[in-house]
Amino acid sequence: MSKPKVFEKPSGLKDFLPDAAKQLRQIERQVLACMQRWGYSEIITPTLEFYDTVGIASSTEDRKLFKLLDRNGTMLVLRSDLTTPIARVVASLLKDQAFPIRLSYHANVFRAIEAEAGRGAEFYQTGIELVGDASPEADAEVIALAIASLKAAGVNRFKIALGHVGFLNGLFQDLLAGRSDDERMLKEYLINRDYVGYREKLSGLGLALEEQQILEGILRLRGGIETNDRALQLTSNSLAEQSIRHLAEVWEVLDAYEVSEHVVIDLTMVGDFEYYTGMTFEGYAADHGFPVCSGGRYDKLLSQFGRPAPATGFALKTNRILEVVNPETDQSARKILIIYDADHRSEALQQAIKLRSGSLPVIVETVLVEEAEQVTTKQLDNDLIQFKHTEYNEIIKYTRGE
Amino acid sequence: MSKPKVFEKPSGLKDFLPDAAKQLRQIERQVLACMQRWGYSEIITPTLEFYDTVGIASSTEDRKLFKLLDRNGTMLVLRSDLTTPIARVVASLLKDQAFPIRLSYHANVFRAIEAEAGRGAEFYQTGIELVGDASPEADAEVIALAIASLKAAGVNRFKIALGHVGFLNGLFQDLLAGRSDDERMLKEYLINRDYVGYREKLSGLGLALEEQQILEGILRLRGGIETNDRALQLTSNSLAEQSIRHLAEVWEVLDAYEVSEHVVIDLTMVGDFEYYTGMTFEGYAADHGFPVCSGGRYDKLLSQFGRPAPATGFALKTNRILEVVNPETDQSARKILIIYDADHRSEALQQAIKLRSGSLPVIVETVLVEEAEQVTTKQLDNDLIQFKHTEYNEIIKYTRGE
Repeated sequence: MSKPKVFEKPSGLKDFLPDAAKQLRQIERQVLACMQRWGYSEIITPTLEFYDTVGIASSTEDRKLFKLLDRNGTMLVLRSDLTTPIARVVASLLKDQAFPIRLSYHANVFRAIEAEAGRGAEFYQTGIELVGDASPEADAEVIALAIASLKAAGVNRFKIALGHVGFLNGLFQDLLAGRSDDERMLKEYLINRDYVGYREKLSGLGLALEEQQILEGILRLRGGIETNDRALQLTSNSLAEQSIRHLAEVWEVLDAYEVSEHVVIDLTMVGDFEYYTGMTFEGYAADHGFPVCSGGRYDKLLSQFGRPAPATGFALKTNRILEVVNPETDQSARKILIIYDADHRSEALQQAIKLRSGSLPVIVETVLVEEAEQVTTKQLDNDLIQFKHTEYNEIIKYTRGE
Repeated sequence: MSKPKVFEKPSGLKDFLPDAAKQLRQIERQVLACMQRWGYSEIITPTLEFYDTVGIASSTEDRKLFKLLDRNGTMLVLRSDLTTPIARVVASLLKDQAFPIRLSYHANVFRAIEAEAGRGAEFYQTGIELVGDASPEADAEVIALAIASLKAAGVNRFKIALGHVGFLNGLFQDLLAGRSDDERMLKEYLINRDYVGYREKLSGLGLALEEQQILEGILRLRGGIETNDRALQLTSNSLAEQSIRHLAEVWEVLDAYEVSEHVVIDLTMVGDFEYYTGMTFEGYAADHGFPVCSGGRYDKLLSQFGRPAPATGFALKTNRILEVVNPETDQSARKILIIYDADHRSEALQQAIKLRSGSLPVIVETVLVEEAEQVTTKQLDNDLIQFKHTEYNEIIKYTRGE
């Protein structure tokens, strides 16, 4: 294989030049501040984790993990989410802290093969985890905070699709008992929102007409809170019913937060992480195909780290939000330039230090004394300064010519 | 080999719990703001780079690089510094931007084997690069900004040791011509500040007494600006002399910045990166053995990426600064808790939203209506609230008991 060219970087990886970096930083700052106002404290975990602990528990598909060996031959992974490392921290360093525990993060995560699908291999997530509270109130708090975070990030038009993994699991329990391969394939179609494929697969299963109609009926379970009633008509499975009741309670609390206008019920949602055990949700910005946030309840993950506890949380997909949000007016031109020659060095540099306590960046640049002698102020204006004037909104000169 | 325990993380890696994370964030924010005031714009580069480009150019020892293969079998590295990725960006994405280019960063970098020496395998650096300016003024600007950045980070007592790789190279050119192995070993002793080892090695080289005395004399070349005069008495090698003259000019500019009180000359410094070609410096906090910042001039690195240019820069060793700086008074207790039952949900949650526009974080928690009925306010105070009172500085109740 050919060597990469010197200026290349691996595919799926991105440089953020100053304007983009500033925008990413602004979203990060505003969202973390919002999360803090809701009582969530930021933590920072390492980029590398053990494959056998966090790697496996993360439930990211194995082939999507970036793996490497440490010097002892132990396999490490680049973290693929923050939920799993935070579960590790809650169960170890924070094991004496009483529940509920509220934590936030802004961090980069890694997926090995996404690059081939034109997606990033490294991307940023800004999210929270609420650990130790199994109530619908906790789920609603997390959704309401996701809504507040999207607004803090500058996303103004969006919808939250809210579902519950228990509903489909209950339904499939009744109708596809013992056919776990078929169940998995149907779920795969739902995850990919391939409803044509779902229907085709369904009609090939040889089910009774009534059962087939129920499973087709799932596809219509998207809409307002009344969707829950239609769902209850489809099934009397107890897990499914219990899941719908939980969603109804979550909705009530969302009403109390006065944010349910942003939410739709979508019972076709399976959730993109295997560890989800309850409600799941995804946020969609207007005119944008991919979710800009996702979250859900995961009540089994903590037990994998030895401290069983219910938990719920979400992450903003921060890179995608960058594509949605309109950048602020470009501020990069607002700088002061101080030009000086060696004879005026002290006064120029002291002036720079003074001006740097103000709001505009100050750049200093030298001209040789000979240059300053040879050119008149007029010429300096024409040559050097004319060239610079688009870049700076003030130029101060400390030269012999002055 | 045994599997890692579930709660473990790989050695040399660190979790930053809320207090530490807050402190790291504060240093990051204050230092980046300082750098911006000096006209440096932040950029963000990917964690992974090609081994054949940035990996090799980084001049981190090969065995210290974290390597992994991508799906095409190309070797990648976890970045070991930011200077090299920024050189790549300046030569590619920014190739049409005129010099000088001023860039800043705050990022994590990786070293594979440091963990065994009790040091971090992942740590944070906050730094700048000034590309396209070969002048002593540029070197002085970088040193003055390093001093301003250390102050912005909260490090108040420190010294900057300033040297020049050209001085030793010139001296060794004359005295150890053709003995590159000996030269490399002597430098190794100097890097490790093992002056006993240096002297022993020197006396075993079989040099003429005068030459041996000159090479021993190097060890005394540390002190104020007068050190330069003593250095010039040791040698008449032109590269060495030129290096000293450059340092004298840098010092003059540092005087104009009124920061030379923080600087000492140290001509025994070799610089911890092979790519340094000119002045190098290290910052030492009082009562702290390891450097808290390091920098230098690297005029050859950019040419490796196809856009030859002089360059100079530095990085704060942010993890070490965390150890030096005294944390601010702990703010984590300053929170408001709102307790409510289902009957008072709306007013409680709306009050939470209102209070969140203030400065204190607000946490909400439910009590069951039955609980609220069974307990008197007094009991609530004793049991629940007494327990909580250390954690919150205000508790507001919305319950039937009220």
